[in-house]
Amino acid sequence: METMKRTVTCGALRKADAGKKVTLNGWVHRKREHGGISFINLRDRYGVTQVVVDDGAPAELASLTAELRNEYCLAIEGTVRARPDSMINPEMDTGEIEVAAEKIVILSRAEVLPFQIDGESGAKEELRLKYRYLDLRTASMQRKIKLRSDVAFAVREYLTAGGFYEIETPTFIRSTPEGARDYLVPSRLYAGQFYALPQSPQLYKQILMVAGFDKYFQIARCYRDEDARGDRQPEFTQIDIEMSFVGREDILSMVEGLMGHIFKKTLNTSLPAQFKRYSYDEAMELFGTDKPDLRFDMKMQDFSPYVAGGEFQAFKDALAAGEADKAAAAAKGITISGGGVKALVVPGKGDYSRKQIEELEAQAKIYKAKGMAWMKVGAGILEGGVSKFFASQAADIIKGLGAKQGDLILIVADSKRRIANTALGAVRSKLGRDLGLCDPAKFEFAWIVDFPLFEFNEDENRWEAAHHMFSYPQGKYHATLEQDPGAVKGDLYDLVLNGFELASGSIRIHDPDLQKKIFKIVGFDPAEAESKFGFLTEAFKYGAPPHGGIAPGLDRLVMLMAGETSIREVIAFPKNSFAQSPLDDSPNTVSQEQLNELHLSIVQPKAGTPADLHRSEGSPSV
Amino acid sequence: METMKRTVTCGALRKADAGKKVTLNGWVHRKREHGGISFINLRDRYGVTQVVVDDGAPAELASLTAELRNEYCLAIEGTVRARPDSMINPEMDTGEIEVAAEKIVILSRAEVLPFQIDGESGAKEELRLKYRYLDLRTASMQRKIKLRSDVAFAVREYLTAGGFYEIETPTFIRSTPEGARDYLVPSRLYAGQFYALPQSPQLYKQILMVAGFDKYFQIARCYRDEDARGDRQPEFTQIDIEMSFVGREDILSMVEGLMGHIFKKTLNTSLPAQFKRYSYDEAMELFGTDKPDLRFDMKMQDFSPYVAGGEFQAFKDALAAGEADKAAAAAKGITISGGGVKALVVPGKGDYSRKQIEELEAQAKIYKAKGMAWMKVGAGILEGGVSKFFASQAADIIKGLGAKQGDLILIVADSKRRIANTALGAVRSKLGRDLGLCDPAKFEFAWIVDFPLFEFNEDENRWEAAHHMFSYPQGKYHATLEQDPGAVKGDLYDLVLNGFELASGSIRIHDPDLQKKIFKIVGFDPAEAESKFGFLTEAFKYGAPPHGGIAPGLDRLVMLMAGETSIREVIAFPKNSFAQSPLDDSPNTVSQEQLNELHLSIVQPKAGTPADLHRSEGSPSV
Repeated sequence: METMKRTVTCGALRKADAGKKVTLNGWVHRKREHGGISFINLRDRYGVTQVVVDDGAPAELASLTAELRNEYCLAIEGTVRARPDSMINPEMDTGEIEVAAEKIVILSRAEVLPFQIDGESGAKEELRLKYRYLDLRTASMQRKIKLRSDVAFAVREYLTAGGFYEIETPTFIRSTPEGARDYLVPSRLYAGQFYALPQSPQLYKQILMVAGFDKYFQIARCYRDEDARGDRQPEFTQIDIEMSFVGREDILSMVEGLMGHIFKKTLNTSLPAQFKRYSYDEAMELFGTDKPDLRFDMKMQDFSPYVAGGEFQAFKDALAAGEADKAAAAAKGITISGGGVKALVVPGKGDYSRKQIEELEAQAKIYKAKGMAWMKVGAGILEGGVSKFFASQAADIIKGLGAKQGDLILIVADSKRRIANTALGAVRSKLGRDLGLCDPAKFEFAWIVDFPLFEFNEDENRWEAAHHMFSYPQGKYHATLEQDPGAVKGDLYDLVLNGFELASGSIRIHDPDLQKKIFKIVGFDPAEAESKFGFLTEAFKYGAPPHGGIAPGLDRLVMLMAGETSIREVIAFPKNSFAQSPLDDSPNTVSQEQLNELHLSIVQPKAGTPADLHRSEGSPSV
Repeated sequence: METMKRTVTCGALRKADAGKKVTLNGWVHRKREHGGISFINLRDRYGVTQVVVDDGAPAELASLTAELRNEYCLAIEGTVRARPDSMINPEMDTGEIEVAAEKIVILSRAEVLPFQIDGESGAKEELRLKYRYLDLRTASMQRKIKLRSDVAFAVREYLTAGGFYEIETPTFIRSTPEGARDYLVPSRLYAGQFYALPQSPQLYKQILMVAGFDKYFQIARCYRDEDARGDRQPEFTQIDIEMSFVGREDILSMVEGLMGHIFKKTLNTSLPAQFKRYSYDEAMELFGTDKPDLRFDMKMQDFSPYVAGGEFQAFKDALAAGEADKAAAAAKGITISGGGVKALVVPGKGDYSRKQIEELEAQAKIYKAKGMAWMKVGAGILEGGVSKFFASQAADIIKGLGAKQGDLILIVADSKRRIANTALGAVRSKLGRDLGLCDPAKFEFAWIVDFPLFEFNEDENRWEAAHHMFSYPQGKYHATLEQDPGAVKGDLYDLVLNGFELASGSIRIHDPDLQKKIFKIVGFDPAEAESKFGFLTEAFKYGAPPHGGIAPGLDRLVMLMAGETSIREVIAFPKNSFAQSPLDDSPNTVSQEQLNELHLSIVQPKAGTPADLHRSEGSPSV
């Protein structure tokens, strides 16, 4: 077959090339006819070039041109010529020229397309995933996959220059399920035994620090068998980083430099040299979440100073009940926060209707608020809602909250301060979206630090690790670790971007005795701990260095950089939200021979069980 | 805990730093005492620094120093001082200085080591893998893991600069077992269904070409469930490459540039701009293998011109039988080669003993030779062995083979030319090793091209793909593809380095009809082909570009660059040769709950079946 290899790409030709004989290879992006002349926009990864088959072309060329349809793959030989001034297209890089075709070879034909490639396809996601090879031809997907490649290279460039080694850790490891479920791989050689795929390289990167590699990174594939909900993928990619002989500040400033390099190199966007920083407690008080969106300000404020002097009994009750709970917990040696009354000033939204306010209240209730009070700011007075209970303090409140005439004040109270914070924080987030304050081209990073090391699991009546069991408790809490776990802050840090958690990390424990103490506090049976993590505590017995790390999610980073809201938009071949691939129809059945070799038999669930439900729900037709 | 963070690394200090106060962090590499003075060689990734605790140090420092053992992890504060001229160690980068310790903090202690870190451990591999974190501290492993990281970065640097995108392909795909077995991942959401892990990203990289990405690469993890033998790993890494609108020469020269960059950048070794090139047929004739070791010459030669004029019946019989077979096959329309008589001149080894020659013959017999004849070259005459049968042609033979007095001539004849070639080729390889001709610091690349597209499987009496089913038959064979598959050469190429196959690649089929024809020739049931590879042939219906690619193995490349003979030496955490990890004891059993969630039950093999055998053999004790 004749191939006629390209001499230039479809993005290369300029006015200065006029007169040159060239060969182009690419796809028919659009074709139109005008007065007997055929115009073919030929596209490749590098651009689009207008090819012209002139009126009066030889019969063979003319009839071949007539046959061409969108997405035919062609080789075209011709001569570059400058377009007349009136025909110059300033929107195209090659808009000053066209190529007069002398010969066309069809490299391969295209059937009728399931959707158009020209611009955003607008097709349903299931169809886009089934014909992903066509969807990936769109300018939008080409741009995003290139961005992902550029970001990954920028990461490697920065970290390699900084003395990091990229070290591959195994993806066939021992199953140590914690948190999410492991994906398993049955062994053929050892009947009844399995490898697990890593949820992250956590244990292995810590072992690399024990091995003395000092600075490690890996852009690593990770696997979590979670229920299909939200924007999750069975496999995802993280920028896994670990360093020895460092403290928190070393890691934070390294990541700031890394992000600065990535954004400068790929988006030509300058980030601040240092990111804003909030303690976990501050973030919860100001934004009601540990992943605040800082593209808008609107911080929550403490309304409790005005409660005692006011006449609104629900607020008073919430604080009193909170105090009582706190005292009861303290008697059991457990630290909890009391009640809270939090206010949010919404600038200029004093004109919100009752219905609009009720929608916001509904949001607060999703996060367990019992209700949401409101007031509007008039000329030196408060109006509507609960304002009558605070009339005597109106001036103090307006001044104290920094409100202005025409603003709306929203208040949530609860005997659990956490609920007051998270519920009003959810209202803040909704307002950010509703008011168009979340500009996708704006990038607001923040560090959240000083997380609690443990969370109390009320269902199971036990402490559990808030992050993971390998994080270092801050030094000042070592003495009282077991007495009051709730008060312990860890050397933990999250990197937040535009309201998303982009990375989570910590300084790790490197002392085998301290590690065992943590296992004990979270109620991990010593034999179980030994069997699952024994190889890590064993490693710690041979001179483990102090170390710590972090792991930004590559999918999410690129998603935010691309201004997208789903990681599926920045993965070449994602699974759908039911963990299936419409492209190759995986997962799928395998042969009985394969099952026999793996010493497995299938236990079909009874009708109506969850797996069965998933099966029928999970196969959306295309 | 006090950490005393380092101000410099253990490889940094020089004479000019004398007088500076520094803090070092690292491991006790060696410790010795001399006249009341303690010398601690403190090691980190960057080097070793001699720390001195002087005679008369404060009691606390002295007693702490006494406690130190090898591999304790320390922080040391002290002052840099120049060593007296007589004490300078020119072998150490830091050999001109030492650090007089003022304060030492033990960051963590080390138990008695299972083997020494100082130099090559010399420990058994099973022990090295169980305590891999200690093994990785050796200078040798540190160097190899750094080399691997450097090589991977050099690959990315070169290909990114060349306009390639690195695109991640999924590792959860559909099972399409061909050749090796797939590893499977059971789905929890869909009872009885499985994902497979990719043996390579082959289908996906071809789909990326259909998607218009033009130049793709990925350093990709691949998985093959093969029986444990030789130097195989369940997971391995390849440098996966694919390009559109290219022919063979484009890919070969791209890879030559890539290898040149890698070797220059990481080993400061210059490679030739173009690699030697042999057709598959030439390689078989000259070296008896398609992966010749070109660090030594010793090409095989054709001895058949001397057979008819000689009196050695076995050679005559071999050629005659070969001719008969060839004629019989031709009658059935199948192309095969006839018989062969091949000679190897071993320079200067005319003094080999009968026993030495018999050892070589034994090697030939492993490769199915019925025997090996020999002669020695005297002063213009042939001596010993079969020389009496060729006495009349001695001068012609000596001249024809380019032999010299004192050389040994080895000859293998067989009615199957392939056997004569491969058996004598195996003798050539053994001689290369025995005679020390395989210098690990020498790198001899070669391309092997023009491979047969099909091989006849005599057991199953059918043609099968020699490489894989997606490789393009060279144009001149398209018309006779189905009549005479044995004659068809493919656009296939292998990159060979020092006797190892480093990469395999081909120009691919991009025509759905041609692809279906290939499926048919290899006896692939159309329905089966459709169900397994339908998504690829479907993709080809929408304007697939001509494309091709290659995939160098990263593990093997780094192994050869490091002068090693096992890929386990260049993988941070390899499995042993029984596909097990002594570090984390994987694979291992999982909980009944995990099995239930995956809708699986275990079918224990009967005693004495292969899996059971593997089980007992496969767990070597440490």
